[in-house]
Amino acid sequence: MRRGIYHDDHEAFRALVRDFVIKEVVGEYPKWEKAGQMPREVFARLGELGVLGMAIPEEYGGAGQEDFRYNVIVQEESARALVTLSTVRTQLDVILPYFLRYANAEQRSRWFPGMAAGELLTAIAMTEPGTGSDLAGMTSTAVRDGDHYVLNGAKTFITGGLLADLVIVVARTSTDPDNRRAGLSLLVVEDGMEGFERGRVLDKMGCKVQDTVELSFTDVRVPVTNLLGDEGAAFGYLGSNLPQERMTVAAGSVAQARAALTTTIEYVKERKAFGKPVAGFQNTKFELASISAEVEAAQAMLDLAVVDLVDGELSGADAARVKLFCTEMQARAVDRCLQLFGGYGYMMEYPIARLYTDARVARIYAGTSEVMRTIIAKSLGL
Amino acid sequence: MRRGIYHDDHEAFRALVRDFVIKEVVGEYPKWEKAGQMPREVFARLGELGVLGMAIPEEYGGAGQEDFRYNVIVQEESARALVTLSTVRTQLDVILPYFLRYANAEQRSRWFPGMAAGELLTAIAMTEPGTGSDLAGMTSTAVRDGDHYVLNGAKTFITGGLLADLVIVVARTSTDPDNRRAGLSLLVVEDGMEGFERGRVLDKMGCKVQDTVELSFTDVRVPVTNLLGDEGAAFGYLGSNLPQERMTVAAGSVAQARAALTTTIEYVKERKAFGKPVAGFQNTKFELASISAEVEAAQAMLDLAVVDLVDGELSGADAARVKLFCTEMQARAVDRCLQLFGGYGYMMEYPIARLYTDARVARIYAGTSEVMRTIIAKSLGL
Amino acid sequence: MRRGIYHDDHEAFRALVRDFVIKEVVGEYPKWEKAGQMPREVFARLGELGVLGMAIPEEYGGAGQEDFRYNVIVQEESARALVTLSTVRTQLDVILPYFLRYANAEQRSRWFPGMAAGELLTAIAMTEPGTGSDLAGMTSTAVRDGDHYVLNGAKTFITGGLLADLVIVVARTSTDPDNRRAGLSLLVVEDGMEGFERGRVLDKMGCKVQDTVELSFTDVRVPVTNLLGDEGAAFGYLGSNLPQERMTVAAGSVAQARAALTTTIEYVKERKAFGKPVAGFQNTKFELASISAEVEAAQAMLDLAVVDLVDGELSGADAARVKLFCTEMQARAVDRCLQLFGGYGYMMEYPIARLYTDARVARIYAGTSEVMRTIIAKSLGL
Amino acid sequence: MRRGIYHDDHEAFRALVRDFVIKEVVGEYPKWEKAGQMPREVFARLGELGVLGMAIPEEYGGAGQEDFRYNVIVQEESARALVTLSTVRTQLDVILPYFLRYANAEQRSRWFPGMAAGELLTAIAMTEPGTGSDLAGMTSTAVRDGDHYVLNGAKTFITGGLLADLVIVVARTSTDPDNRRAGLSLLVVEDGMEGFERGRVLDKMGCKVQDTVELSFTDVRVPVTNLLGDEGAAFGYLGSNLPQERMTVAAGSVAQARAALTTTIEYVKERKAFGKPVAGFQNTKFELASISAEVEAAQAMLDLAVVDLVDGELSGADAARVKLFCTEMQARAVDRCLQLFGGYGYMMEYPIARLYTDARVARIYAGTSEVMRTIIAKSLGL
Repeated sequence: MRRGIYHDDHEAFRALVRDFVIKEVVGEYPKWEKAGQMPREVFARLGELGVLGMAIPEEYGGAGQEDFRYNVIVQEESARALVTLSTVRTQLDVILPYFLRYANAEQRSRWFPGMAAGELLTAIAMTEPGTGSDLAGMTSTAVRDGDHYVLNGAKTFITGGLLADLVIVVARTSTDPDNRRAGLSLLVVEDGMEGFERGRVLDKMGCKVQDTVELSFTDVRVPVTNLLGDEGAAFGYLGSNLPQERMTVAAGSVAQARAALTTTIEYVKERKAFGKPVAGFQNTKFELASISAEVEAAQAMLDLAVVDLVDGELSGADAARVKLFCTEMQARAVDRCLQLFGGYGYMMEYPIARLYTDARVARIYAGTSEVMRTIIAKSLGL
Repeated sequence: MRRGIYHDDHEAFRALVRDFVIKEVVGEYPKWEKAGQMPREVFARLGELGVLGMAIPEEYGGAGQEDFRYNVIVQEESARALVTLSTVRTQLDVILPYFLRYANAEQRSRWFPGMAAGELLTAIAMTEPGTGSDLAGMTSTAVRDGDHYVLNGAKTFITGGLLADLVIVVARTSTDPDNRRAGLSLLVVEDGMEGFERGRVLDKMGCKVQDTVELSFTDVRVPVTNLLGDEGAAFGYLGSNLPQERMTVAAGSVAQARAALTTTIEYVKERKAFGKPVAGFQNTKFELASISAEVEAAQAMLDLAVVDLVDGELSGADAARVKLFCTEMQARAVDRCLQLFGGYGYMMEYPIARLYTDARVARIYAGTSEVMRTIIAKSLGL
Repeated sequence: MRRGIYHDDHEAFRALVRDFVIKEVVGEYPKWEKAGQMPREVFARLGELGVLGMAIPEEYGGAGQEDFRYNVIVQEESARALVTLSTVRTQLDVILPYFLRYANAEQRSRWFPGMAAGELLTAIAMTEPGTGSDLAGMTSTAVRDGDHYVLNGAKTFITGGLLADLVIVVARTSTDPDNRRAGLSLLVVEDGMEGFERGRVLDKMGCKVQDTVELSFTDVRVPVTNLLGDEGAAFGYLGSNLPQERMTVAAGSVAQARAALTTTIEYVKERKAFGKPVAGFQNTKFELASISAEVEAAQAMLDLAVVDLVDGELSGADAARVKLFCTEMQARAVDRCLQLFGGYGYMMEYPIARLYTDARVARIYAGTSEVMRTIIAKSLGL
Repeated sequence: MRRGIYHDDHEAFRALVRDFVIKEVVGEYPKWEKAGQMPREVFARLGELGVLGMAIPEEYGGAGQEDFRYNVIVQEESARALVTLSTVRTQLDVILPYFLRYANAEQRSRWFPGMAAGELLTAIAMTEPGTGSDLAGMTSTAVRDGDHYVLNGAKTFITGGLLADLVIVVARTSTDPDNRRAGLSLLVVEDGMEGFERGRVLDKMGCKVQDTVELSFTDVRVPVTNLLGDEGAAFGYLGSNLPQERMTVAAGSVAQARAALTTTIEYVKERKAFGKPVAGFQNTKFELASISAEVEAAQAMLDLAVVDLVDGELSGADAARVKLFCTEMQARAVDRCLQLFGGYGYMMEYPIARLYTDARVARIYAGTSEVMRTIIAKSLGL
């Protein structure tokens, strides 16, 4: 079916990203997987190509095109080449919006040029050991002391935390016993600030080209000029970016499920079993046909929601529907695809194995499927 | 999410259909169910309202608006009221296109005014006992004898066959041992022609307001002027209308799944179990949330395909994907909804029970899910 | 795999039941379906054959063999012949145990001979409109007045209520605001007692050879001698028979799923599609193979639990596990089987259609799947 | 439900294994995971404990108890402790039977004592790059030259190939163009034979404490005295051991699914989300209840088949049913369990993540689910 959500500018950007991925990512990817992260130079290169600055205003070196479709294209083109650029995705889709929305003029001048250039890498530290998706339960504190906040707390599951030059930390600047959601603020902690420690790199099942770390903050003095947005307003900020964060995951799921389908189709045409191509078995045909139908359903749903998001019309419940459906679809699709590889599907040298282990987190992060169902149910009056 | 496929004219039509369904269908429906069909007067009324003639050229009393969206609206509005107008659907979506596409000028004058007025009811007779979806396996024959074809054969699963004034019969007018698909033609058999018998009314699991019958043709002399389109060209004709027939089923599935969801949400809010509303249980919320996500995925996919269909751009494989996904989704949704009704869900007085038994055929008719998978697989090069 | 739970006596009984079903049920079944119940003579015949009296002590005309395996055999042999004897099942598995366990000597003399002979038909009236599985929520009352209880209340979903000569009614004989479960008693209402009315016969989706009715009781004077067991003890009685009631449903599910598998295998071998037997398609083979594996898993689980039940060792949680698994398995199996029949699967003349509509209630009655999950979860300490 | 397949001797053995696993495996396991294999000393220790020699005749230092239940116990007790001893499993369940069945007196004296003592480690080399489950398609050759066979070929997916002292290699000793299954023989290649090379260690998704390697054989001169069984008879040998190999996998699946359930129950009771234990959510309870029912169904089926296997009565089709059901059940169970861990489920330090990645191979090795379905279908006459 005709997708119809992309225009010429998008397609030009797609060509650029595709070219970059094929020429500068695919060959290096196994190294990055072993290293557990993308090297800094890649970010610089992505800055140079204009990928990191698409949404950043032109006066700071960006293109001034805040349009979620560009972000989707980055995911589509990396998935097509059977790689992921998930740290880039986190920066663009999850973290940058906070800066775009809440940074004041001084902060914009200070940080945007470096972010557009791929020289300032970022992370966001929300989750604490023991809180999961329950943002209101955070216990990190930031106590005002003159021109500084004194920050204390521990964070976990921080994507890209190892290289980050700037970390947005969500901390409690005041306590209201009657309102757990009040009193949270966003502080930008910079690399090198005293008391800011990077802890263990977590050993994840998949998503290997992306470090996920624990961070700790012990009496870190964060200047008040690093407060992002208004003091005490963070809960609302986080909530308002959630639909986009979920759309990001959904977009990745659809792109990766499609990639799994494509690579599996290629495989079953070549591979023989019992004297004929695996593609020759009706079971193979039927499995792939079912997956194809599901991928297209998810794509249609995603695209419709992307347009709503771009137009500022996407509700939280619809974002939850899209994330729930697309990530569950991906799980089914990737599992069925892998099965068609037989024993090779279990070997990490086959991308399908990586697609499988990468996929498992999609139903969990940015809100679990259970959280999505809770949100959707509320919107149904339940 | 915003659907965006309907314009003002569509919405005006929707209002008219909704009004008709509420005022003239809902109250009568139980009677029609018992009778196993809609009475002729209803067709006359639908003719009067302009529903039957939307796609028929204005010169024959129609509105000249051949636009599949009107057909979808008829299904959406009947499903919303927890009824189905499936014979109407068959006439408009499945049969009328053959007349519109292949009737010559004389036939148009002869038949279109009555069809637009709801005075000429129609059916199409394809399936034979023993052929199923295998059109090329048909054995009914029509042998040319002067100005007539002499038609012999038996047909089954004929929707609306009991009241039909005109029955398009697919028969073999010539035999090519090398090409099973060649030599099929469409003949319009009229009520009262000698040798045309209506056989058993089949006892279906659901779809009770729609007769499904066996028809037999014994030396029926059909005038050559009742040949629809070119002799020997029927296989191609049938194939080219299949995408729309499948879209019709898919549209029904989505509308009915949505109706099931809506009626279930209402039910669980009112109904108590173990001292609290059924809606208060997390399982209830999660089930309905999952269904809601699936319904919206199907809706998005369907709408995208509807636009493709209206623009003449829908491939057979995409129609197959849409039918496969939407009907399988409906099956899951209706089953889960029914479960939330407990024992009442098993009672036919609750519409959910009818939605359940009606739904079972959607994965079968207009091509089974297995046929859909076969078509999709071919399009994937498998 | 070898089942190993039956001995010679069981097999002799099986031969007798099989013979009866083939010769005296199969041919009559369509009539019974239309009538919505089995005729009284059939019960008399089952009495004569010793089927109804297996568990009744010899002194009252029974065989004194209370062994749940005989009940399972009745279900296995009726399912094998693609019929159900569900009223018999209700009498033997659900109702008779109350009489066996709680009837005093006088009641035994009064009722057992007629029950063994198939002359006294029985029903049990638990559910009230609005209570569902929540037994503790019952509102029917029985107020002591001299030698009688004055019974008032309305009951629904009563299997076999139309012909029943004796109806065990659960009613509240006293009220304890602190304990909803206290104060319930079992009263045996007899046909013809004043104020006992049989209401609507409910129109069910399936299970057509079994009436399900509403019953009402208006100032019915029930002699105290018709109190079954101790006053106020019914909640415990009902609870203690639940494992067996659930096992009954599970046994039916396994037997019917197996019957569905068998009839489908026969069908696909005969039926052709696209020029070859449906059995020739890999999809057909794989679907049936998967079903076969599930049926055998359910059978193994059921048999293990049957032995536990016979030995008085089956826990409520294990009965819940067995019911949950076996009925969910049946649902999947029957749905997949039906699909392989294509359009014929939707026609009630094919037993698969009846197996499908019959199956839908198994996940609901005797405690829904949701209730089963609740029970199991408690046993896991959750 | 009461399992009833184990006797006192089994329980004594279980106690011994449990003790060993807790004291000598659990603490070392992370090291073994990093190393990608168990150290040789562990085999020696297992020899000392009598685990490796259970089935080996007493005259060679074993216990002479060939009883598959002992093998199941090894899996149950390792799974209970959230580890796997899969190389041990391969030795005992897959490889040892060939030696027990086909080794002649001289070979028994030569090899059995070392095998019982854990000093001679073994592997079997069947699969070749490109053949998968299609044993008849093997192309490795062994050409007779005097007292030797000259062996050439490449094998892959060899479990335990790195440490193996003896490798049973399946090779073609003669070619019959009309019968692909004829002419295969088993040759025992010994560590150090010239031309026998161990190739790449494959990087698997899971099953990390078990090396899987490629082996190559270039003009390896294998003495005729190392022929196991009759020349040309290997296809039959392999086939006759397949039921046990599949039962091994099934037993592992059930034990690991149960372990996943147990560890998840513990986790959800401790872990809080949104201010209450995860166990407090109805969704959690229902998910775990469903899994519990499935685990018990699988256990019942497995146990029934184990008894059949021990009695020499297990058919290939029943073994296929058991493997299919148990491994598919494990996949569903482990996936649902992991979801309840939220983000922690994606971290390899949580055993559930390992149970998830380990599980994925169960539907593939020892014959994929597709192969199982093919076997079952044949037994159904399809």
